[in-house]
Amino acid sequence: MSFVKEVSRWILAGVNSVIQSIENDEIDRIVDVLLEARENKILLLGTGRSGFVGRAFALRLMHLGFNVYVSGETITPALTPEDLVLAISGSGTTTTVVAQAEVSKGVGSKVVAVTSHQDSALAHLADEVIVVKGRTKIDQDFDYDRRQITGEYDNAPLGTMFEISVMVFLDSVIAYLMQKLGETEIDLRKRHANAE
Amino acid sequence: MSFVKEVSRWILAGVNSVIQSIENDEIDRIVDVLLEARENKILLLGTGRSGFVGRAFALRLMHLGFNVYVSGETITPALTPEDLVLAISGSGTTTTVVAQAEVSKGVGSKVVAVTSHQDSALAHLADEVIVVKGRTKIDQDFDYDRRQITGEYDNAPLGTMFEISVMVFLDSVIAYLMQKLGETEIDLRKRHANAE
Amino acid sequence: MSFVKEVSRWILAGVNSVIQSIENDEIDRIVDVLLEARENKILLLGTGRSGFVGRAFALRLMHLGFNVYVSGETITPALTPEDLVLAISGSGTTTTVVAQAEVSKGVGSKVVAVTSHQDSALAHLADEVIVVKGRTKIDQDFDYDRRQITGEYDNAPLGTMFEISVMVFLDSVIAYLMQKLGETEIDLRKRHANAE
Amino acid sequence: MSFVKEVSRWILAGVNSVIQSIENDEIDRIVDVLLEARENKILLLGTGRSGFVGRAFALRLMHLGFNVYVSGETITPALTPEDLVLAISGSGTTTTVVAQAEVSKGVGSKVVAVTSHQDSALAHLADEVIVVKGRTKIDQDFDYDRRQITGEYDNAPLGTMFEISVMVFLDSVIAYLMQKLGETEIDLRKRHANAE
Repeated sequence: MSFVKEVSRWILAGVNSVIQSIENDEIDRIVDVLLEARENKILLLGTGRSGFVGRAFALRLMHLGFNVYVSGETITPALTPEDLVLAISGSGTTTTVVAQAEVSKGVGSKVVAVTSHQDSALAHLADEVIVVKGRTKIDQDFDYDRRQITGEYDNAPLGTMFEISVMVFLDSVIAYLMQKLGETEIDLRKRHANAE
Repeated sequence: MSFVKEVSRWILAGVNSVIQSIENDEIDRIVDVLLEARENKILLLGTGRSGFVGRAFALRLMHLGFNVYVSGETITPALTPEDLVLAISGSGTTTTVVAQAEVSKGVGSKVVAVTSHQDSALAHLADEVIVVKGRTKIDQDFDYDRRQITGEYDNAPLGTMFEISVMVFLDSVIAYLMQKLGETEIDLRKRHANAE
Repeated sequence: MSFVKEVSRWILAGVNSVIQSIENDEIDRIVDVLLEARENKILLLGTGRSGFVGRAFALRLMHLGFNVYVSGETITPALTPEDLVLAISGSGTTTTVVAQAEVSKGVGSKVVAVTSHQDSALAHLADEVIVVKGRTKIDQDFDYDRRQITGEYDNAPLGTMFEISVMVFLDSVIAYLMQKLGETEIDLRKRHANAE
Repeated sequence: MSFVKEVSRWILAGVNSVIQSIENDEIDRIVDVLLEARENKILLLGTGRSGFVGRAFALRLMHLGFNVYVSGETITPALTPEDLVLAISGSGTTTTVVAQAEVSKGVGSKVVAVTSHQDSALAHLADEVIVVKGRTKIDQDFDYDRRQITGEYDNAPLGTMFEISVMVFLDSVIAYLMQKLGETEIDLRKRHANAE
């Protein structure tokens, strides 16, 4: 088999383990929180690849009729205590994400963190945390010497496992929201951009 | 099992089939084309979720030392005949992507298309095509009536299967490029943004 | 006087002439069209610096309570015949802007072009055109030889005069809309992002 | 005269006063700092309209051959002590801009602040400050009652005067850099994106 396909298979197996290890009640709560936010605003926070995964989710929420915004883009409205902030950061320490989540808390908005680290600054200030593992615990210390020798993460470097896991997980949450809201693909397509 | 986890498992199985069905020689060619472009510029084209997947790949190429740009962002340089354009579009018909790919061809740059549709406008003008299936052939006609009844795509609506497949596939290409270039995760981390 | 300040003074004088030369009835029409669009969606089109000027305007329209979107960003909804598209391009020939304006016309949305060139592809397909001069007519042919010798545009290269003129003009339109709508700065501030 | 043109004239007069009041030695220093950064990386920081003005400047720096990046976009590299960070914030207090400027200082990069407020958090941590007034001192306290009555800022609400002043000022800096570097509009045009 081609090396590329072999790596894909290995990544997909890893992603499956990560997603199956998410706590069921954390999944239930994020679905409830999203459904409650349907009449209000949702703001997505995230930088780099976590930000792209967040935007992919935001787009589907929009296709589902949610009133959703992405931090860093032109149109980002004033948050209110009724609004929901969804912050994605594998490490839970990304400077701007933590800073914006803090401001959001100050405004009174509900903050949901999607992170690998339950003990991170982001997780600590969030109202709800979804733990999506992406790396083992040793990652917190990033043991350069050991990695230099083993190369153990070279097939899914940095946040790769976290980011793909979050993308697949959030797309599965979309499928559940569709079912709950009685929305079909046809409904989504009607809200899809037609001048892009 | 939670419905969300069940959908994830189903998506991951679908993504695996899609990736395993990519032609091996198409994979070899995209790797060669990327390695050849290492001294020149690479421009990513894509809108919506395909664009986010493209940006996630662009970020990793940057971490690998490539000179990569993303269409629609501030810093997008003039293309030359030595440069490479990577265009991602499931349908192969996205208006702005096809328009920009045409201009790129006019400049003389090499265009690689990542698409589900070998017969699309984008595939026809590209120098290389990687076919990443995402939907069956019937999708081209988007049979509203049939779908309304069967709801068959509601667990992975619209381009979901294509987009996740392309993300996992391109991350696997990154693993292969790392091996070929002798780069490790440590090298990538050194090029990772530190003020975000 | 510092050279930089001297150039600023020269640019500002140029911008003033450009804005004073805009047709009054074109101004009246764009104001009317914007007011009519208040209950519907407005989509901004533009690339590069014209795009940034468009986004700056979009942000103020949002502060004024308009339902506005920017092409190329995550949340871009489906256009309908009731919606308004505002396309900014000095040359009136930018590939993706013209392509998207064409699609928008096909959907039935109203297209307003802000351009220096009344005879451009963009102006021809638009329902309304605001001509904002930025360069003299010779610019259409971009006479390299003449410029190489005279250096006449080096203090405001490329689209600089057009872009600043459009920014100041559109901010003046905002002042007029505020008056018409009875909105004050206090009202705008309430809609300003608070978590950025 | 049309009200819109009258406001434009008033804005342009205001912008001229603002720019003429910038300290000449601050202008000299920013030009020197930019010229020194020509072999290294420059990162632009700014949110909202200040961010758009920063991007417009970044684009011209790129046209001039500088190696420039914009925070929040896909390709943002690791900063080093040799790099330059240009942070734009009228208030000097924008959460994410201050947070990123602090991280940049920690890395050892030089930080230049463009702000109306010499006493702001951003100005305090910057190595160089360019004061671009945009509002009078009373703005710091934002006296809601007084404004509600006088409506004095309704023709240039919020940061409008600051943002346009910074745009014109930085475009004038571009003219000066072109002269210093012997670059003409023709040179810039060669580096302009050709597939947008």
